[in-house]
Amino acid sequence: MKLTVDVKHKTYDIILERGCLKTLDTYIDTTKRYFILTDTNIPQSLIDEVVAQCPNSTVYKVAPGEQSKSIQTFEDVCQACLDFHMSRKDTLIALGGGVIGDLGGFVAASYMRGIPFISIPTTTLSQIDSSIGGKTAINLGKVKNIIGSFYHPDLVLIDFDTLATLPKRHIQSGLVEALKAGLIHDKSIYEIFKQDDYEDHLDEIVYKALCMKKWVVEEDEKEVGLRKTLNFGHSIGHGIEAYYNLETYYHGECVGMGMLYFLDDDEVKKEVIKILEKMGLPTHADLDIDKVFDYITMDKKAHADTISIVKVREPGKSYIEEMSLSEVKAILERNPL
Amino acid sequence: MKLTVDVKHKTYDIILERGCLKTLDTYIDTTKRYFILTDTNIPQSLIDEVVAQCPNSTVYKVAPGEQSKSIQTFEDVCQACLDFHMSRKDTLIALGGGVIGDLGGFVAASYMRGIPFISIPTTTLSQIDSSIGGKTAINLGKVKNIIGSFYHPDLVLIDFDTLATLPKRHIQSGLVEALKAGLIHDKSIYEIFKQDDYEDHLDEIVYKALCMKKWVVEEDEKEVGLRKTLNFGHSIGHGIEAYYNLETYYHGECVGMGMLYFLDDDEVKKEVIKILEKMGLPTHADLDIDKVFDYITMDKKAHADTISIVKVREPGKSYIEEMSLSEVKAILERNPL
Repeated sequence: MKLTVDVKHKTYDIILERGCLKTLDTYIDTTKRYFILTDTNIPQSLIDEVVAQCPNSTVYKVAPGEQSKSIQTFEDVCQACLDFHMSRKDTLIALGGGVIGDLGGFVAASYMRGIPFISIPTTTLSQIDSSIGGKTAINLGKVKNIIGSFYHPDLVLIDFDTLATLPKRHIQSGLVEALKAGLIHDKSIYEIFKQDDYEDHLDEIVYKALCMKKWVVEEDEKEVGLRKTLNFGHSIGHGIEAYYNLETYYHGECVGMGMLYFLDDDEVKKEVIKILEKMGLPTHADLDIDKVFDYITMDKKAHADTISIVKVREPGKSYIEEMSLSEVKAILERNPL
Repeated sequence: MKLTVDVKHKTYDIILERGCLKTLDTYIDTTKRYFILTDTNIPQSLIDEVVAQCPNSTVYKVAPGEQSKSIQTFEDVCQACLDFHMSRKDTLIALGGGVIGDLGGFVAASYMRGIPFISIPTTTLSQIDSSIGGKTAINLGKVKNIIGSFYHPDLVLIDFDTLATLPKRHIQSGLVEALKAGLIHDKSIYEIFKQDDYEDHLDEIVYKALCMKKWVVEEDEKEVGLRKTLNFGHSIGHGIEAYYNLETYYHGECVGMGMLYFLDDDEVKKEVIKILEKMGLPTHADLDIDKVFDYITMDKKAHADTISIVKVREPGKSYIEEMSLSEVKAILERNPL
């Protein structure tokens, strides 16, 4: 399968194909110089497979997890690009999950003011969420994604075979972004999650979620309106993530818990809780409300006194409400369960 | 005077007006929130003048000079933006020379993936060179401008009165970029520099240099072709700058020396040397050729074996030559004087 994303000033393909990483020369000029950014959690066999096909490449590994979205790691990677004598004719490949994609994207956007960039997302989260949209980012302390740019890849290669070695918790957590896609814009995705055999429809879920996101990003690349709806679950979700030092809970788990606060319909909320439980994901975390609230006020969607909150009226239908910070705090204090 | 720069996806004004900083409300909404980035060399009276007109602003000062184009300072400024609770509705003002403009521009481009940005260049160098073009940058160690982005300001305010307190060496050094503008594309600027009273024509020199750069940037924003000619003098110039740790010589002084290597006509070269001497600028620096050459190979215009070199055939006429690195080294070894 192939999706073509058509944003202002750029058009690029997303290839969804089991085994596509085995035949790289179908998609890229394997004789060129590639700087392959990956992390120490990515199976060496996968790295070797890519390197074997790209003889003029170098591999640079960072530590896994959010800690690598630091300014320090960003600097280290840029220095490594310099050491590899990367020029604007060479290409950075981000081989890994969301962290590698976000970090690699920001390096590609910033190194020499922009070099070619290929994304090979290897997790459900990165395949569903960060492979479309051009958002690149690093963190500042505990504040997520506060530094970054809009920079689209030249190509995205999604090979579902990379999920084979991914721990179940990681897979399920990533799927929350697809559940979110269903809740905000595409009821048919939501319906799949309601089925007991949703895991047998992984390809379909990822494809549908990408189609939804492609539509949103093409409509509103710079997040002036529609695209804000993708932040459903993220305002409080990011707050929970930051409160737990980006460690205890995965991103998708936090988004899942964050969504529950802004589902208008109580019946739907019950259904979503049931889905999250079925997926083995948490529905509630112990929180110090004041501290979580402090992080929320640092969100990019927060202004002086208000914050843009995404709410879901019914599965597939979302809207944005400019909510006072005090109102958000009151909602945070009411346990959504 | 006003120039309107019209690049892809953005149009913005450059105001050139003596005293324009005294009537800011003519140009901006002074009631908005402004993060004013400046350095400790900028006269406090100038900072006070801006702050007095923008009551909802905060001032953040960095150390003067290239040292502040570090990743560390970039992080510090982003953190200060966060502490000021900057949102995408607020504006960053870069009040200072080229360092402040480059650093401030990259912060504005990256903080929350882009916030509004106003540039108030206060030196000849920044007024002539970095106020048009949207190039933002920081350094990585000694390698200049290797990290950055293309990000245009929303407004540029040039007030020639800010030059009153600038040391003469700083003024003359900055003017080298205008001399360069004359050599590569506009002979009429070059003719002014040949006159003994060129200093009486400062407004005209800056205006003409900006017009030239506006034309180049509008033609080739992303530096695919024509814009590369602006790098005249910079390949070796950056090498000299790096070799001296970005300390001993000013940027313009290095560009001036760098230009001498690539003037095809010996008579013109003699004239340019005479002009540089008249301006009180160096025409030669002691160099360790091997080390300077190493820095040159790290230039953004360098590829595996070649580098794009800008040469001047005659005043106002330049061209680009893809030169082998060994050839550049040979030229470096021949003293151009």
